[in-house]
Amino acid sequence: MNKNTFLSWIEEGVISIPSFLFRYYKKIGLTDIECMVILHIYNFIEKGKEFPTIDEIAERMVLSTEHCSQTILTLIQRGYLEILKGQTEEGIYFEKYSLKPLWLKLINEHALHEQEDLQFQTNLEEG
Amino acid sequence: MNKNTFLSWIEEGVISIPSFLFRYYKKIGLTDIECMVILHIYNFIEKGKEFPTIDEIAERMVLSTEHCSQTILTLIQRGYLEILKGQTEEGIYFEKYSLKPLWLKLINEHALHEQEDLQFQTNLEEG
Amino acid sequence: MNKNTFLSWIEEGVISIPSFLFRYYKKIGLTDIECMVILHIYNFIEKGKEFPTIDEIAERMVLSTEHCSQTILTLIQRGYLEILKGQTEEGIYFEKYSLKPLWLKLINEHALHEQEDLQFQTNLEEG
Amino acid sequence: MNKNTFLSWIEEGVISIPSFLFRYYKKIGLTDIECMVILHIYNFIEKGKEFPTIDEIAERMVLSTEHCSQTILTLIQRGYLEILKGQTEEGIYFEKYSLKPLWLKLINEHALHEQEDLQFQTNLEEG
Repeated sequence: MNKNTFLSWIEEGVISIPSFLFRYYKKIGLTDIECMVILHIYNFIEKGKEFPTIDEIAERMVLSTEHCSQTILTLIQRGYLEILKGQTEEGIYFEKYSLKPLWLKLINEHALHEQEDLQFQTNLEEG
Repeated sequence: MNKNTFLSWIEEGVISIPSFLFRYYKKIGLTDIECMVILHIYNFIEKGKEFPTIDEIAERMVLSTEHCSQTILTLIQRGYLEILKGQTEEGIYFEKYSLKPLWLKLINEHALHEQEDLQFQTNLEEG
Repeated sequence: MNKNTFLSWIEEGVISIPSFLFRYYKKIGLTDIECMVILHIYNFIEKGKEFPTIDEIAERMVLSTEHCSQTILTLIQRGYLEILKGQTEEGIYFEKYSLKPLWLKLINEHALHEQEDLQFQTNLEEG
Repeated sequence: MNKNTFLSWIEEGVISIPSFLFRYYKKIGLTDIECMVILHIYNFIEKGKEFPTIDEIAERMVLSTEHCSQTILTLIQRGYLEILKGQTEEGIYFEKYSLKPLWLKLINEHALHEQEDLQFQTNLEEG
């Protein structure tokens, strides 16, 4: 164990995931594996790789490349994930994943729960 | 959408996971689902609940309570997770999960990769 | 350097601060030092110590204990920080810091900027 | 308050700072303001801007541009911060800040404390 091993750990850093994702992913219709695929994509994005290939994602998972590919496809079709296409200032075309649809679903779910909590409290007080 | 919904989101916060967990969990012998169970436990610990029940964990997962229970058991047996028992200053007994064994496996795996990278570079230069 | 040093680093972990705090603290009326005092308090809270003493905070700062004390007082008076008092289920009285007033100011500032951006875009389009 | 305000908050995200920075910065010789300047630089780097200008940093601080400039200069001279120069694959020259020297100082400080703790425990046991 030397200092460079330690240093590279610090430089790789952490990824910070909204805690509500773990609380709500099942409620918004994701399976455990689908959520894991999303976490891998999020990790790549946060580390600066905005459009990882299926192979790069699957290499880190026990899930087969084929299943990984299918999972990503259905995540897009069912509106949890999207692929944005664009052009840089230098005119280079790019594609990148966006988790915006997922965050919107989470916000909606969270707002719903807040409302229920409020309703519940009101009922108690009125009860 | 009101300010309180926003505020409770901020107060719930994020959980920060070492990025290397996503890179190495398969290499250190974890399946995708096992890693997900660990992430749930980690999320509970970080939010102050150090010994969540199986039901609390399983409730957030698609995985059945029975499978969840088995998964946690094998994670302990195979040395990725441990349960610590202790007594508070007030004399109250407690149990809590510890992810120390997991972090040690990750550190070892990371040190191994650093060494390989170094070896690879030396070979290139000597080549 | 040994594994335990590494492990204790991982276990101490990170604190995750909304990025907008750095962007907006001056705009919402905080000085650099005041923001630093808040970051120390936030760090203590996140590590489970919800009511650190002035000495504990000042010990980590170049700021004198006296100035630290004054700074916290004015942060409370000016509505960035509050002290909550309560009683645990076991009947023990406690006090703790809450950053809720700060988050509310940040949310307001952020909402304002979003609106301006929107107004700016509308003007451009109408222009 | 609308969903887009919320969404942009989530997308801006958090920055995750090793908790030990707050515990040790004074011990490794940084002032409160110097640490704040470093946090701003770190925030820019994490958000993808690896070489923010002095004006961009100072704009967010109460500290004057001149003092900010001097602070960064002495941080480099005293070995807490460095500027790396390089060339991208496309042949474009770039400069960027690196916090590597800071992390190394923190690792050393942390290793020292771990050793002292160990020594302290040994003395207690032998005592």
